[in-house]
Amino acid sequence: MSQPSKEKVCLIGSGNWGSAIAKIVGRNVVKFDNYDSEVRMWVYEEIVHGQRLTDIINTQHENVKYLPNVKLPDNIVAVPDLLQTVQDATLLVFVIPHQFVKGVCEQLKGKLHPNARAISLIKGVDISNGGLNLISDMIQENLEIDVSVLMGANIASEVAMENFCESTIDRKNGEAFHKALHSPYFRVAIVDDVAGVELCGALKNVVAIGAGLIDGLKMGENTKAAIIRIGVMEMKKFSQTFYKGVKDETFLESCGIADVITTCFGGRNRRVAEARVRTGKSFETLEKEMLNGQKLQGTLTAKEVHEILKSKNMVKEFPFFTAVYRVCYEGLAPKNLVDEI
Amino acid sequence: MSQPSKEKVCLIGSGNWGSAIAKIVGRNVVKFDNYDSEVRMWVYEEIVHGQRLTDIINTQHENVKYLPNVKLPDNIVAVPDLLQTVQDATLLVFVIPHQFVKGVCEQLKGKLHPNARAISLIKGVDISNGGLNLISDMIQENLEIDVSVLMGANIASEVAMENFCESTIDRKNGEAFHKALHSPYFRVAIVDDVAGVELCGALKNVVAIGAGLIDGLKMGENTKAAIIRIGVMEMKKFSQTFYKGVKDETFLESCGIADVITTCFGGRNRRVAEARVRTGKSFETLEKEMLNGQKLQGTLTAKEVHEILKSKNMVKEFPFFTAVYRVCYEGLAPKNLVDEI
Repeated sequence: MSQPSKEKVCLIGSGNWGSAIAKIVGRNVVKFDNYDSEVRMWVYEEIVHGQRLTDIINTQHENVKYLPNVKLPDNIVAVPDLLQTVQDATLLVFVIPHQFVKGVCEQLKGKLHPNARAISLIKGVDISNGGLNLISDMIQENLEIDVSVLMGANIASEVAMENFCESTIDRKNGEAFHKALHSPYFRVAIVDDVAGVELCGALKNVVAIGAGLIDGLKMGENTKAAIIRIGVMEMKKFSQTFYKGVKDETFLESCGIADVITTCFGGRNRRVAEARVRTGKSFETLEKEMLNGQKLQGTLTAKEVHEILKSKNMVKEFPFFTAVYRVCYEGLAPKNLVDEI
Repeated sequence: MSQPSKEKVCLIGSGNWGSAIAKIVGRNVVKFDNYDSEVRMWVYEEIVHGQRLTDIINTQHENVKYLPNVKLPDNIVAVPDLLQTVQDATLLVFVIPHQFVKGVCEQLKGKLHPNARAISLIKGVDISNGGLNLISDMIQENLEIDVSVLMGANIASEVAMENFCESTIDRKNGEAFHKALHSPYFRVAIVDDVAGVELCGALKNVVAIGAGLIDGLKMGENTKAAIIRIGVMEMKKFSQTFYKGVKDETFLESCGIADVITTCFGGRNRRVAEARVRTGKSFETLEKEMLNGQKLQGTLTAKEVHEILKSKNMVKEFPFFTAVYRVCYEGLAPKNLVDEI
């Protein structure tokens, strides 16, 4: 059992992104005397090539299913049981899909170390009970612990290859998580703005839908850059309208313009939106054909954002978000997108 | 002769960008009672297919040499004589290469309408007399008239095709020039920041060199986005260090992030820097091979910026600009770029 004065990190989630982060965390914790060197990683058990995935990870030190060909440090221990994963953990890294957060929190409630704090790497927002809810707030309200967020221009496969990039976390618990997450190739900046950082991670996908439509229309570099810029401005306005204290500077961090650029030039939202114009097929059809079971986050977020704007009678103040929503759900022709903004 | 109360626009320059702008200005001036409907455009006379270029423009209404296949409005009048071009003009649009500004100003000195004001669409900075000089300041000091600037994500050929884009001008004379330059497909925003807008137009090319090197190294989307973001932050810091009053918001305008994106994904600076890594050839060689007599602005600006930083003993505070300079001029290996920043 770890000494109470030591920090003990655990990872809740072990997909592509979780595994790339595990590689960094595993290497970092051994560098600091006040961090326990064992990092447990919750793995939803499944059988891969006749073996349990946890066994494969713990013997071959590789997540062969979600991050193949990348060695994980030996101190990453795959654990199939959620409660065993978080036992004694003081620093919880949430990196599971959006839709599992509620269920996981219900299981964890009342079972955490008294000094437990969390960071969310989960992208997306939740709208229920007629309002906008940050994932970090959901975790905080369910578990009654402090929750930070990490967002940035971080395509998991590139992080796993140790290509240089940056990321952004907020100052709440920032120092403790910074030690576990920062590395020379994964440079983590700390800002004072939880909501701003987290909303960037959700709203960028709406911008990527717009950028992909422009790509499909072959309108060129000027138009695409204009759409991205207008998108960033609406991200900022939306965040500052619904959350007090969101800072302008946050949008110049990695979670802001850098992640928007990555998402608008790579990424599945851009790709599917481009195909929407090229093929004339619906987003629903393309999601099935192109994403192999994954969800298209951008269209979903566009809908959630629109519902909030509608309920606040602010649709007209966000012409870009509204136009993207209308292309996705109301039959607006993509070529009319720019006329609307 | 125009009535003294009317604004009369003239264009000093008729290249690719000047001609694309002429199309917009020609259409705009006829919409306003207080603008003279004739717009003279200074054309450096040359013979094209046995005809004078000015004659071709004035009969065929097309700049067949610098913007072929795009019709100019009939009220654009090509004039080979500089002084005749500016006669009675109250609004002068400077859109000539950087290196001709001084000579042109010398010819114009004392010959302008008493109400003449100017806008510069010229990208680049001038360093001479040991300091940094904005092109707009050079024009202003030489001609003793107010000078605005226009910058943005504006690839000329795409503007000429009327693909939607945005641009940024400063408030000085902004209103009068806004009427002449803004159109539904060329959306001009007004900001209170001459120096910030103009420095964006010069410094973005240094960022594009960095982005092109990353492309050549095939380091992926995360790294490229990080480099672009870091570049924008140094653009901001540089501008705010050397010019008081440069605003943070300017970097979220079209002249800022949008133009940086366009330049870092298209554009010749990016292209040549990528080739620098791919081929191992020097920038000098590649400039000759790839640019057909055009100059590579980014390497030149990197040098000018470096000289200023050196003279102010601030090299270490701008690690990205310095690393780009060192790759261009001091043999730093491109693969070591990210280690320096």
